[in-house]
Amino acid sequence: MRTAKPPHRGPHRRALKSPPARPADTHDAPRAAARTAREAAPVRPGRERADNPGAQSWLYGRHAVIAALANPERRWRRVAVLAGAEAEAAALVAAAGARFEGPMAQSVGERVEVLDRAAFNLILPDGAVHQGWALEVLPLEPPDLDDVLRATEASPGRSVVVVLDQITDPHNVGAVLRSAAAFGAAAVIVAEHGAPPITGTLAKAASGALDCLKLVRVVNLSRALDRLKEAGYWCCGLDESATQPLAALDLGDRVALVLGSEGGGLRRLVREHCDYLARLPTLPVLPSLNVSNAAAIALYELVRGETPG
Amino acid sequence: MRTAKPPHRGPHRRALKSPPARPADTHDAPRAAARTAREAAPVRPGRERADNPGAQSWLYGRHAVIAALANPERRWRRVAVLAGAEAEAAALVAAAGARFEGPMAQSVGERVEVLDRAAFNLILPDGAVHQGWALEVLPLEPPDLDDVLRATEASPGRSVVVVLDQITDPHNVGAVLRSAAAFGAAAVIVAEHGAPPITGTLAKAASGALDCLKLVRVVNLSRALDRLKEAGYWCCGLDESATQPLAALDLGDRVALVLGSEGGGLRRLVREHCDYLARLPTLPVLPSLNVSNAAAIALYELVRGETPG
Repeated sequence: MRTAKPPHRGPHRRALKSPPARPADTHDAPRAAARTAREAAPVRPGRERADNPGAQSWLYGRHAVIAALANPERRWRRVAVLAGAEAEAAALVAAAGARFEGPMAQSVGERVEVLDRAAFNLILPDGAVHQGWALEVLPLEPPDLDDVLRATEASPGRSVVVVLDQITDPHNVGAVLRSAAAFGAAAVIVAEHGAPPITGTLAKAASGALDCLKLVRVVNLSRALDRLKEAGYWCCGLDESATQPLAALDLGDRVALVLGSEGGGLRRLVREHCDYLARLPTLPVLPSLNVSNAAAIALYELVRGETPG
Repeated sequence: MRTAKPPHRGPHRRALKSPPARPADTHDAPRAAARTAREAAPVRPGRERADNPGAQSWLYGRHAVIAALANPERRWRRVAVLAGAEAEAAALVAAAGARFEGPMAQSVGERVEVLDRAAFNLILPDGAVHQGWALEVLPLEPPDLDDVLRATEASPGRSVVVVLDQITDPHNVGAVLRSAAAFGAAAVIVAEHGAPPITGTLAKAASGALDCLKLVRVVNLSRALDRLKEAGYWCCGLDESATQPLAALDLGDRVALVLGSEGGGLRRLVREHCDYLARLPTLPVLPSLNVSNAAAIALYELVRGETPG
């Protein structure tokens, strides 16, 4: 049952995302011998640097590294792999050569370092599930909400964005990015304060989605919701205490899904800036869903009747 | 659009789960002073014991501890909290007194230990997000698939079970338990080999659901699917390459959702034991959804038209 409601405010629609193109380049053979921890230089401490947004850092995990190399906006310095993956890495590195930030005299092979497990442990945070892939990158240019909205206005079709209020766990933000990309959302929007920094942990949880989807940091979420409304989005907050299930709302083609933390839910001002509040049909006796699962379900609900393309 | 298909094979239906009852007991005041790491005895190493299924172990996290104390089938030895939570802990401990496994001369206060953060770090695995709550427990009696099926046959209504094939990450299994409990599933079924042991990490990710829902370990998943079919369940495997979207299937009132690992998907034999294969409407260019998000979406799809109760 869908309620009678105007389908959308804005005149413009946006197409589903297509994968980023890879620039072409040549490549040659990678270095054959694996470096040990002692040889891998310069060695970085196994900590994630989030304090200096201009500093390079390591992404890790197969999907995250491959997506970063395929992202035409991602600049990088070097790839580290376990022995056996160097040929695949060299092919990816060659294709991503235009965005290489290092000594241009280096061959493709020199841009791929074969490290052993101990060396991986030195460059990555403790417990990082790297799957034998790491990439030293420079941070992405922070996307601007207005740029995202201009891009969505320029293309027809549905446009969904996810707004996260006070979600502090990088695993959760990364997992939301992953689901948002899988369901063709245009962006994930977080507040500058209260959201986790963009680290390898977040990128690993996003499984490549950090390099496929805009993660927009805004100064003030309530003002961002106002801006979204001006651009024709209906802002729908998820709230366990809402009276309407999400499936009963017809939110039209331009939707901002707004989710709060598992403990506190949406903050009052953010909630008041939503056009609608909706709930998911969970049992009342149990704690709420994990926020990334709630986001995945809500994203699914918006597209479940459509054919992806 | 739903296809014409017999709604279910079995004659019996099952009601949604209700919360477990707490036995009544009296309680007295908890110990006032926080123990330091040195004083907390016996101190256990910060590792999870999964090799000996009969051994006691620590659950941690507020939801996991509170759900375990509320579970009429859970035996426990002691509660550890940070200073400030002792009164709340004592009330829960008093209510759970019938399942206390320790010196019966101990008062409720003596069953609650106030520890400092360093002492928490000694008893729990590195990096455990304990939220100031830990509970030393004995393992739950392993539930049997036939017992679960008998229980579901005895009550009317929808019955959903989730079957996990080769999901090895305890965070993922725990997160699936959480969503399964939130959407009123009857059980999560895993293979004895290939599934993670039941540890505090899994229980924390389940956020209390380990003590609300049956986690059934079977010797052979294919035989378990045969047993489910005999009991009237339609077995539906999630598979990115399937031709039908899950939303197009009418699976009736007794459904087994079968999910494989993110890398490998369903194993051939498990896939062949499914009645249906269905996909979720994700974009083809991106890696698959996280398995717990896929499970949450599938569970939601089965109940989205219903009113929870």
